[in-house]
Amino acid sequence: MSTVHQATWELLRALGVRKVFGNPGSTELPFLADFPDDIDYVLGLHEGAVVGMADAYAQSTGEPTLVNLHTAAGLGNAMGAIINAAAGHSPLVITAGQQVRAMLTLEPLLANPDPTALPKPAVKWAFEPPRAQDVPAALARAFRYAGLPPAGPVFVSLPMDDFEQPADEGGTDLLAARRVTGRSVAARAELDRLAQRLAAARNPVLVVGAGLDAAPGGFDAAVALAERQRLPVWLAPETARVGFPTDHPYFRGSLPSAIAWVSESLAGHDLLLVVGAPIFQYYPYAPGNYLPAGAELVAITDDPGAAARAPVGDALVADPGLTLVALAELVPQTNRPAPAPRAPLKIPPAADTLTASRVYDILGPLFPPEGIVVTESMNGGAAMWDRVKFRQSGSFFFCAAGALGFALPAAIGAQLAQPNRPVLAVTGDGGAQYGIQALYTAASRRMPVTFLILVNGEYGILKGFGDYLSTTGVPGLDLDYLNYEALAKGYGIRAVRTGRPDELAVALKEAFTAADGPHMIIVDVQPGVQLEH
Amino acid sequence: MSTVHQATWELLRALGVRKVFGNPGSTELPFLADFPDDIDYVLGLHEGAVVGMADAYAQSTGEPTLVNLHTAAGLGNAMGAIINAAAGHSPLVITAGQQVRAMLTLEPLLANPDPTALPKPAVKWAFEPPRAQDVPAALARAFRYAGLPPAGPVFVSLPMDDFEQPADEGGTDLLAARRVTGRSVAARAELDRLAQRLAAARNPVLVVGAGLDAAPGGFDAAVALAERQRLPVWLAPETARVGFPTDHPYFRGSLPSAIAWVSESLAGHDLLLVVGAPIFQYYPYAPGNYLPAGAELVAITDDPGAAARAPVGDALVADPGLTLVALAELVPQTNRPAPAPRAPLKIPPAADTLTASRVYDILGPLFPPEGIVVTESMNGGAAMWDRVKFRQSGSFFFCAAGALGFALPAAIGAQLAQPNRPVLAVTGDGGAQYGIQALYTAASRRMPVTFLILVNGEYGILKGFGDYLSTTGVPGLDLDYLNYEALAKGYGIRAVRTGRPDELAVALKEAFTAADGPHMIIVDVQPGVQLEH
Repeated sequence: MSTVHQATWELLRALGVRKVFGNPGSTELPFLADFPDDIDYVLGLHEGAVVGMADAYAQSTGEPTLVNLHTAAGLGNAMGAIINAAAGHSPLVITAGQQVRAMLTLEPLLANPDPTALPKPAVKWAFEPPRAQDVPAALARAFRYAGLPPAGPVFVSLPMDDFEQPADEGGTDLLAARRVTGRSVAARAELDRLAQRLAAARNPVLVVGAGLDAAPGGFDAAVALAERQRLPVWLAPETARVGFPTDHPYFRGSLPSAIAWVSESLAGHDLLLVVGAPIFQYYPYAPGNYLPAGAELVAITDDPGAAARAPVGDALVADPGLTLVALAELVPQTNRPAPAPRAPLKIPPAADTLTASRVYDILGPLFPPEGIVVTESMNGGAAMWDRVKFRQSGSFFFCAAGALGFALPAAIGAQLAQPNRPVLAVTGDGGAQYGIQALYTAASRRMPVTFLILVNGEYGILKGFGDYLSTTGVPGLDLDYLNYEALAKGYGIRAVRTGRPDELAVALKEAFTAADGPHMIIVDVQPGVQLEH
Repeated sequence: MSTVHQATWELLRALGVRKVFGNPGSTELPFLADFPDDIDYVLGLHEGAVVGMADAYAQSTGEPTLVNLHTAAGLGNAMGAIINAAAGHSPLVITAGQQVRAMLTLEPLLANPDPTALPKPAVKWAFEPPRAQDVPAALARAFRYAGLPPAGPVFVSLPMDDFEQPADEGGTDLLAARRVTGRSVAARAELDRLAQRLAAARNPVLVVGAGLDAAPGGFDAAVALAERQRLPVWLAPETARVGFPTDHPYFRGSLPSAIAWVSESLAGHDLLLVVGAPIFQYYPYAPGNYLPAGAELVAITDDPGAAARAPVGDALVADPGLTLVALAELVPQTNRPAPAPRAPLKIPPAADTLTASRVYDILGPLFPPEGIVVTESMNGGAAMWDRVKFRQSGSFFFCAAGALGFALPAAIGAQLAQPNRPVLAVTGDGGAQYGIQALYTAASRRMPVTFLILVNGEYGILKGFGDYLSTTGVPGLDLDYLNYEALAKGYGIRAVRTGRPDELAVALKEAFTAADGPHMIIVDVQPGVQLEH
């Protein structure tokens, strides 16, 4: 007779699990016991790092990804990262151990007393199987549900004594064999209507969000549609992924993120086609018109919640990739003039000092064609979009909920998912602290990830927002010196530190060509952040 | 006319706020603007560290303590630490910024879309004021509610645009002036009944939990009662605080934490008086009798939930300190023989190597009489209880929910609350990673805290539990070398590393006598954990 442990791992293997991202505790030992040799356990030393790694891995592969955390404490530590994963529509199957069922009623140490409530605000579904024998079915349900649109994290609580129990007769074959898919294309009548609107528009524009990069085929479909209709293409504000090649002549940049600024940036357009983004990730609050004068908006998203809550515009709820492919086939080749070339951003040169913008100016020509940037820094954002070119799907990841602690672990997850592509993590001396433990995983696995730390000795972004908000006298915005060379050494990562352009270029070149483990490049940049788009 | 910002800070000052523990984000800037000069903003670089510091500060002072975090992301990062604070009955008033009200309906970046659900499983109350003008009243309610028994964290979400709004007329004087108290003594008839049961018992025993140390007067009352009734005194299993002087001749040690082990340890007793603890923080699961043969149990606790869920015994719900004071006055001086002296634990000497037990053997005679231990390590626990003496209230803090990431920040919080007492944090090379960012705060404030890191290159506790559970083949239990000397340097903390008993003694002496900032002592101990009680 099979145990729940055996049935669970048979199911997980049948579901295609090849990696488990985790940080173990005692309540997880029975689940993790006799861990299969052919599955890779990716250890993180803090649950925020574990989920950050899994998040980018799941986003990169598009596959439901298993995470195993330690009861209430570990799940709690991960909640910030899970909030990012939820906003990033990352199909994570998050599990945590639970105390022995026989003790739960008296709430012993290491119980998770309300296991489905704890993750609820950030997961689509949270469940504790009512019987040990239901663990495989609960996990099967979790894997399907995480991946169905809109993709996102789900949670299953696993009582630690369940695994030694006898499994239900009959095995897990039927569970494993199910094919459950949610990709759908918008109804043909709606597509025809949209194609007509687009063709009839005087000056339409395409705005591409993270969801398009997540949808298979979406990246190429955006190019096809843009070229067929000669659409200038913007990235949605604060986009977490890039669904359009930023070296394309039609690429315009990343939209600024306040209500008034968006409509100002898109002035003159009469139709905004927004694909794979909510309307919009606004911040800060600069009230104004949602749309340029005379413009209409149509959104294509697989997220019913985002479609419903948009303050303006029509929406089609369907897979943005499939729908864009279909739309591109329906629209005619336009005779509108091609979008005018965009003038490159001017970045003041400086021989001996660095700003974040200059860092991207130097990085741009050195950045490998197949490179990936994983970032949580907004410092120098305009220069990044101008100088660093993302040429294929899966090239860019930003913390989708704006939660710091993403860049360092997510770079590792992206590298695990796309091992043949160079990965660059970018954060600041403040930001790196929220996910610093991820460095251990990169070092212990000798992963060729480059960690770029922009050191300005402050929470510069907050000073920048403070200027915008006219707040003064805020404490806690200056940072004492954090010695990142020593911190890197502490985790076993080689590091160089420089404030000079020429040395930065050398360090970047070396990091991108060496494949023998992680590098950290610590860059002293001038205080202040450069936010302008 | 006053703004909500002015009214809020007037209220907070009137409520006695002297410190704010925080990690700022943009949504907190309007609240933190024009921060009062006479209030100390204690910056932590990760929200887990922020709450860990505040937790021990609130427990040490007994006062509701203000925490300010960054919207959903920051609150999420803190959830593990908040779970500890909840289990530790720490009166935290946790706040987080929220997006501008005018944008909440469209769920912009940095919104906390379900602000009361996110912290709910770990807080007594969660609230977002329905109007800007309600912020002061919501905070007043939060401060009172956090401190009322059973004490624990509460949460208030603060929309960032509230602070510039006009306050309601009339000021906050009436709110600030309220005296709201929840300390109560058990009804006299119940006390008489309990006094009679105790006096009539053949061989009663006192079990002291964290709640007694938290209750003013409880520590001394336990001594008075124990001496009057000649009660042997145990600490409750996995106690988070020490409510009885462990150098007292009646002190027996810390109870082991499994059901069967508790009853075995207390065999022969006919009445268990448990004060300030749930029944019990059991772990692992070793089923058996809850009580020794023929024994009865009476619990005194201010936690109705703990009283209700206990699997056995009677309970009085009232302040454990006041009730024990009253009980000690009601019981007669017994003529039972005094408890027999406890034989000291034998710890194998070793000239050149260290185990965790030997570390405590060396620490014991060097530990200052007024010293404080803040720990999350169970390695060598029996030796700690035997060798290290805690002589007054507020001397010991353990992660109440078993969530790692507590020791480093909580040591800082304990030192801030009790600045004239030497504080020693104890954790392992695995455990330290969950709260490593706290080192920054200790360094930047030049705090005389000693951080003792027991390095065994593994999650030793999990291997120990794995032996108990007979789990084999669990991944992720071995740690590559973490260079804590470099990590300490990274945060600006001097460190020494040793594996030798004589060098450890020198380092401890120096740390306890120097008062010029933090020390880290990295101790190489043999693999494995020593858990036996």
